[in-house]
Amino acid sequence: MARVSSLLSFSFTLLIFLQGYAAQQFPNECQLDQLNAIEPSHVLKAEAGRIEVWDHHAPQLRCSGVSFVRFVIESKGLYLPSFLNTAMLSFVAKGRGLMGRVIPGCAETFQDLPEFQPGQQGQGQQGQRQRQHRRGQQGQGQEQEQEQGPEQRQSFSDMHQKVEHIRSGDTIATPSGVAQWFYNDGNQPLVIVSVLDLANHQNQLDRNPRPFYLAGNNPQGQAWLKGREQQPQNNIFNGFPPEVIAKAFKINVQTAQQLQNQEDNRGNIVFVKGEFGVIRPPLRGQRPQEEEAVGNGLEETICSARSTDNLDDPSNADVYKPQLGYISTLNSYDLPILRFLRLSALRGSIRQNAMVLPQWNANANAILYVTDGEAQVQVVNDNGERVFDGQVSQGQLLAIPQGFAVMKRATSDQFRWVEFKTNANAQINTLAGRISIMAGLPLEVISNGYQISPQEARKVKFNTLETTLTHASGPASYGRPRKA
Amino acid sequence: MARVSSLLSFSFTLLIFLQGYAAQQFPNECQLDQLNAIEPSHVLKAEAGRIEVWDHHAPQLRCSGVSFVRFVIESKGLYLPSFLNTAMLSFVAKGRGLMGRVIPGCAETFQDLPEFQPGQQGQGQQGQRQRQHRRGQQGQGQEQEQEQGPEQRQSFSDMHQKVEHIRSGDTIATPSGVAQWFYNDGNQPLVIVSVLDLANHQNQLDRNPRPFYLAGNNPQGQAWLKGREQQPQNNIFNGFPPEVIAKAFKINVQTAQQLQNQEDNRGNIVFVKGEFGVIRPPLRGQRPQEEEAVGNGLEETICSARSTDNLDDPSNADVYKPQLGYISTLNSYDLPILRFLRLSALRGSIRQNAMVLPQWNANANAILYVTDGEAQVQVVNDNGERVFDGQVSQGQLLAIPQGFAVMKRATSDQFRWVEFKTNANAQINTLAGRISIMAGLPLEVISNGYQISPQEARKVKFNTLETTLTHASGPASYGRPRKA
Amino acid sequence: MARVSSLLSFSFTLLIFLQGYAAQQFPNECQLDQLNAIEPSHVLKAEAGRIEVWDHHAPQLRCSGVSFVRFVIESKGLYLPSFLNTAMLSFVAKGRGLMGRVIPGCAETFQDLPEFQPGQQGQGQQGQRQRQHRRGQQGQGQEQEQEQGPEQRQSFSDMHQKVEHIRSGDTIATPSGVAQWFYNDGNQPLVIVSVLDLANHQNQLDRNPRPFYLAGNNPQGQAWLKGREQQPQNNIFNGFPPEVIAKAFKINVQTAQQLQNQEDNRGNIVFVKGEFGVIRPPLRGQRPQEEEAVGNGLEETICSARSTDNLDDPSNADVYKPQLGYISTLNSYDLPILRFLRLSALRGSIRQNAMVLPQWNANANAILYVTDGEAQVQVVNDNGERVFDGQVSQGQLLAIPQGFAVMKRATSDQFRWVEFKTNANAQINTLAGRISIMAGLPLEVISNGYQISPQEARKVKFNTLETTLTHASGPASYGRPRKA
Repeated sequence: MARVSSLLSFSFTLLIFLQGYAAQQFPNECQLDQLNAIEPSHVLKAEAGRIEVWDHHAPQLRCSGVSFVRFVIESKGLYLPSFLNTAMLSFVAKGRGLMGRVIPGCAETFQDLPEFQPGQQGQGQQGQRQRQHRRGQQGQGQEQEQEQGPEQRQSFSDMHQKVEHIRSGDTIATPSGVAQWFYNDGNQPLVIVSVLDLANHQNQLDRNPRPFYLAGNNPQGQAWLKGREQQPQNNIFNGFPPEVIAKAFKINVQTAQQLQNQEDNRGNIVFVKGEFGVIRPPLRGQRPQEEEAVGNGLEETICSARSTDNLDDPSNADVYKPQLGYISTLNSYDLPILRFLRLSALRGSIRQNAMVLPQWNANANAILYVTDGEAQVQVVNDNGERVFDGQVSQGQLLAIPQGFAVMKRATSDQFRWVEFKTNANAQINTLAGRISIMAGLPLEVISNGYQISPQEARKVKFNTLETTLTHASGPASYGRPRKA
Repeated sequence: MARVSSLLSFSFTLLIFLQGYAAQQFPNECQLDQLNAIEPSHVLKAEAGRIEVWDHHAPQLRCSGVSFVRFVIESKGLYLPSFLNTAMLSFVAKGRGLMGRVIPGCAETFQDLPEFQPGQQGQGQQGQRQRQHRRGQQGQGQEQEQEQGPEQRQSFSDMHQKVEHIRSGDTIATPSGVAQWFYNDGNQPLVIVSVLDLANHQNQLDRNPRPFYLAGNNPQGQAWLKGREQQPQNNIFNGFPPEVIAKAFKINVQTAQQLQNQEDNRGNIVFVKGEFGVIRPPLRGQRPQEEEAVGNGLEETICSARSTDNLDDPSNADVYKPQLGYISTLNSYDLPILRFLRLSALRGSIRQNAMVLPQWNANANAILYVTDGEAQVQVVNDNGERVFDGQVSQGQLLAIPQGFAVMKRATSDQFRWVEFKTNANAQINTLAGRISIMAGLPLEVISNGYQISPQEARKVKFNTLETTLTHASGPASYGRPRKA
Repeated sequence: MARVSSLLSFSFTLLIFLQGYAAQQFPNECQLDQLNAIEPSHVLKAEAGRIEVWDHHAPQLRCSGVSFVRFVIESKGLYLPSFLNTAMLSFVAKGRGLMGRVIPGCAETFQDLPEFQPGQQGQGQQGQRQRQHRRGQQGQGQEQEQEQGPEQRQSFSDMHQKVEHIRSGDTIATPSGVAQWFYNDGNQPLVIVSVLDLANHQNQLDRNPRPFYLAGNNPQGQAWLKGREQQPQNNIFNGFPPEVIAKAFKINVQTAQQLQNQEDNRGNIVFVKGEFGVIRPPLRGQRPQEEEAVGNGLEETICSARSTDNLDDPSNADVYKPQLGYISTLNSYDLPILRFLRLSALRGSIRQNAMVLPQWNANANAILYVTDGEAQVQVVNDNGERVFDGQVSQGQLLAIPQGFAVMKRATSDQFRWVEFKTNANAQINTLAGRISIMAGLPLEVISNGYQISPQEARKVKFNTLETTLTHASGPASYGRPRKA
């Protein structure tokens, strides 16, 4: 009997299996009948902060082909340099700090000269250029290097590639393979959220996020990767024998071993001891809006290409209504490097009961992350079903597939969010309002389509003059769930 | 004993399974040893027409990464606005009608002014511009809107985005996310066939076609999607509570409910009651061949970009032989928006016994749809096997993968077809004829490769002067099947 | 008992299976914990050479999305024309020969005129232009053709598309669908290695390499394709009935049958009988470095586009150190057609104990093939693990995924290799040296990251002045395996 029941349970397992297999043959990854506001599934703890990783196998994220990460860096914390197999778009949700990146082949244009250089070069001019900050011009940097012998190098304290101030509202574009570090020089935690586009051409590996560590390590392992959960992740120096490192860097084997961080249990975010005296420009005020030539291509300008922009200045908003809030977008016209990354961003900030009219993305998936407050959000899929109707609040994420219509309504004093979009120029279609789908349809299509009178059709087309933001009354009329 | 046989059948199932699984590991989707002329697998019936859907899981279509649909719209029928997750290229196979589309952010440039406007603006000039048709110039349209208050809006009957006449032979390019409607203002059914490119970058979801309905519904559900067969498909208004719609459109809840088409059983193609008086330009004659700048990019010209072209005018044919027929191609040089859609089309019309010399697509898959008559078609795969040798006739479809060689020979008075290709500039290689592969090879390669004399090689190279079309004799020599 | 154990083994199988299935759901194709230097898995023998095919299902190659092939053509051997479903980048590893290709729609610009043409045209000028070599100018070629009747065609011996000399070090770019042949006119075997990019946009079929034969056949079948192993592969003429071929080429059925190579057992590489007298330009010396306009697009220049470049001339090297060796790269700036193919190449040649400093590709996978000698290579993955540490020697291949760091050290007199990269402009990041990641980081990041003193950090940054090549001492310090 036991065997028969075993056989039966087998048959059953097999049946489920066959069904799964058939589904696999024709993947329906984006047949999302239920969305959820999702939170991180893995937390990697480090000495001076933590890295929170969303599970990129979650149906919403798989459909959008992205991975999502939140970096929380404590005051005086340094996120050690690492690079990725994917393009990354980041948003500074809280705090301020410094960011550096190293782009292969670009010169070390940030150079620090000591105050007094007796006997060396001797020109007063040179001495006066202390903490000199030269931008761009790779060639110039290289020439200077070549002129100086290794002993002369001792004459300056340091030289390195560009370092930038970052602050809340900054959006940061990072190509694949480019090493990047962050330092929190403020008093509150520095919180950065990042989308990693696994599906686009910058990632030439499989659809998994793969951070490569240049320093530090991750004792908890790549928890989001099957088969890597238990295995500690080390920096790439670890994979080379110390002798090779010593030879490559012309250093002794002891220092080479130190580069492997093997005895280090600080993780990938560490506290800086003493002053963090990297060369940096003065804090920026208004960013000069120098227009970079769009057609220049990445390759020619990558060393000096601007890679950040701030989305929190209402004076640059695309939609601005003092009573309701504002919405700013950042696409490849604003930040040309996004053309290369095939990503863009939208920042929204609305007040209680302000409503973002139903809209959808025509050519992109959107990853919505809430930075402040909370809102009621409704999402409708291709089958006309409401697949999400609920509150999203600070720290939560909602992935909205291409074409899915969304309505947002602030339910706290202030609702602020950022949307990352998987297209360098994501196009938004609005359902209602002045420049909307309904306004673009002829009256006859509306009256015949919905079996309403021409007068009613006229109201549908022209009553709402707003394009994006409107005011919504109290919660009574919205909170009702659709089905019992 | 029963158990043993159970076990055996289990083993067997598992074996099949393992094989299937191994196949899955290394998908051979395009190892097509047998092609078929395929017909629609699902028919969605509506009040004033029907939508016929080919199964995109069919091996041929999976290999090409496309979905195929035929719209049949009765006289006075209106195909209600919908949009897709994919780029779409359509061909009007029969009939004539009107087409409108709504592109987000573009102005309503079709504006209707009533005959008499006393007290309003008062300028006689303005009054004379009745059924005025202003093209392009988004900004202008917007300014005018902003000047007018909602009451003033009552002064015009309607304004909406561009409406175009379409007729048999028109090819229509539609980007993802752009809402489109069709109206049949002729006396015979309007038949439109469309290819949806699931595999290209415009689709950011999975490889399934997903229509989003703005009006109407589909009581039969998305029959082509696993798990959606039984579920009726509603328009996207259905997913929002009526109160939200009412608030968004500033209309009453009753009208909002009407927008959901819940009580509506007309489907997605409905009969228009009364006159269909949308603003439209006069019927076009010769389309002015204004050349749009190719390098302009989609984004700058999308509002005024031309998106249709007619392929049935023999005077524009690329190959034209009065006795045999003609072939016209439409690529991104003719219609720049195709560069963005990564699709192109070819229209052919040949007479009885005319033969299209064997050829293949170097960089595209082709979806061949027969609009009139029938032909014998032979297709040869990469293994040198004839994977199709049969008749294809009106309404049938044949998907021809990249590199597969094809010969067509008309077996009815007239054979007319359209080919959709998955590349904005599909390159055709011909096997025989003046500008063919064989003509480009040196004699020595031919004589050594096929072990024939230089004299024979010369004949192979130079005997056929035609490039594409030739005359073929009676059926006796062709109809023989290859294998018993 | 037997049944119970059967059940147990079943359960076990099923478990393995379920795990496999789960893995399939979330493919981890690039989670490579072990790389191997791989050799061909299939050899297709032909009369005058052999084709060696690497198994594209091998994990390394699947992760990189490529297939790899080696052609060995004996002296006087002719590789018969074939075309592929993918873009191909080839490197001539040994020998010299001729290459011809036929691009659809381009004119036969290589034309051979006989010495004496009495009565025909009669102009002495024409007669003098013997073995005339006209480049480019498709239009001109076509006009001439149209002027000449078929009888006049007899007045020239032959005309065909461009034929080029190839020699060791040449890199050859071939778009999908373009037919190509090779002839060995030297005395030693002509060895050509080719990478086929299955993953890029030029391949519109599944991820399998599919050669289409225009002549010859392959009696061993497409051994690398499941279900095609046993089946002989024929040329595409074989798939059409001889009557159709006869009609298309206006030849008799007997010659048509000959084109099918059915009685032919020479395979796809055949010996040429007698002289191979194709029209060819004189052997090139210095290639004129005419700069082709980069923005011109493929379509406008494809007929005259340069598609080969030699990487073995140290005078064009990007890195050159007389004592150590040289490294040359070929990207889309050098050879614009690579922009269209999305592939590039790197050629390296280093002496015993020279070392290529650890580096990784930021935006590409690399396929390393050893042409001469041997080297010790170490590869480190994203988890900081050494996934390869061993010798690679002549004829072996190593696929290095995006981001994986690599160190190479010559262990023979000379180590020479070619790397094919899956990006038209692959960016290399070096770990150590003057323009490296470490040099671009501020001292504070290094000293805090690795817990070393500023003095040590300064050494790490500035001690190594070399960018790519350095000298490594004897093998003692490198050969140690990492783990017991």
